[in-house]
Amino acid sequence: MSNSPNEIDNLEHLFSRLPGLGPRSARRIVLHLLKKKDTLMPSLASSLTVAMKSIVSCSLCGNIDIINPCSICTDIKRDNKVICVVEGVTDLWALQKVSSFRGLFHVLGGVLSALDGIGPADLRIEPLIRRINDNKISEIIIALPVTVDGQTTAHYLKEEISKLNIAVTQLSHGVPVGGELDYLDDGTISAAINSRRAF
Amino acid sequence: MSNSPNEIDNLEHLFSRLPGLGPRSARRIVLHLLKKKDTLMPSLASSLTVAMKSIVSCSLCGNIDIINPCSICTDIKRDNKVICVVEGVTDLWALQKVSSFRGLFHVLGGVLSALDGIGPADLRIEPLIRRINDNKISEIIIALPVTVDGQTTAHYLKEEISKLNIAVTQLSHGVPVGGELDYLDDGTISAAINSRRAF
Repeated sequence: MSNSPNEIDNLEHLFSRLPGLGPRSARRIVLHLLKKKDTLMPSLASSLTVAMKSIVSCSLCGNIDIINPCSICTDIKRDNKVICVVEGVTDLWALQKVSSFRGLFHVLGGVLSALDGIGPADLRIEPLIRRINDNKISEIIIALPVTVDGQTTAHYLKEEISKLNIAVTQLSHGVPVGGELDYLDDGTISAAINSRRAF
Repeated sequence: MSNSPNEIDNLEHLFSRLPGLGPRSARRIVLHLLKKKDTLMPSLASSLTVAMKSIVSCSLCGNIDIINPCSICTDIKRDNKVICVVEGVTDLWALQKVSSFRGLFHVLGGVLSALDGIGPADLRIEPLIRRINDNKISEIIIALPVTVDGQTTAHYLKEEISKLNIAVTQLSHGVPVGGELDYLDDGTISAAINSRRAF
């Protein structure tokens, strides 16, 4: 790298620290940006600065928005007695998109993981309990990933929240819409059989 | 995407226009940046601005640097009678790194391609001819990729430069150092046989 100017090395190094990018893809991106020095590059630089200044994390639910509390928490048309617990902001957005849920959200910011050393204190569980106590919540919907860590976290949350005498539900597991049985893993098929419903 | 703030959508859109990134990887990068809003994000924004202002393209060879003509073209220790023709800036850096070549470079900015509609006028061939005429160049080394388009371009250049009565050479083709014959493609093996040397 010693043959390219320092300014380029710096930029490459920063890009290579982004998720999914390595030194080579970072270099490719930097060269592409330098080719588009008058169009893409200034837009990216200014967009970064604008986002950096305007984006805040919602102090209630953990969503990211330009206002705090966020536009979901302040929406009076939503049912503020139901909270859906998700792992991250992208899960929140995914649930928002289908619009069959009109309650509030709570972003945990991760899931419990013994391997990565993530314990209950590292997640936003304490703020969730506080929200439940302060706002007369009637139901908590757990929408965590169906992985070992996700389900461990779900069980932990259920234990904690059940102490408060509040209904805890979780998303149903089963055959995805459009899914063919032939291509599904065993875990999904047994989950679908175990939670079969009257037809 | 309508559920995330505009500032984030903009940033995602710009990132998704970079080579190798799609909408999902762009979103992942943007969320990662927002998590590191106080460290990585400001460095990236300021590095982009600095690079945008300071990086220029060398008017002689096409290399990118912070000075024009670039540090290679102005290096008096280099042999300014030999020019190595490369496709892009990354090829120039790759050759620079091995330091067995001490001449000058010329970046073509691409190769001829009938499919992509790239003709001789789209490449920096005219400036190369001018450089040869103006500077009493003794040898042109063609270091273009060993692909159909690369070799078509190499042949075209050889024709053009031979008219000027100047030696034209090209990188040798053959078995890469550390390469096992078993894993090599037929083209490389026949190139290696055809250009075999006394041992």
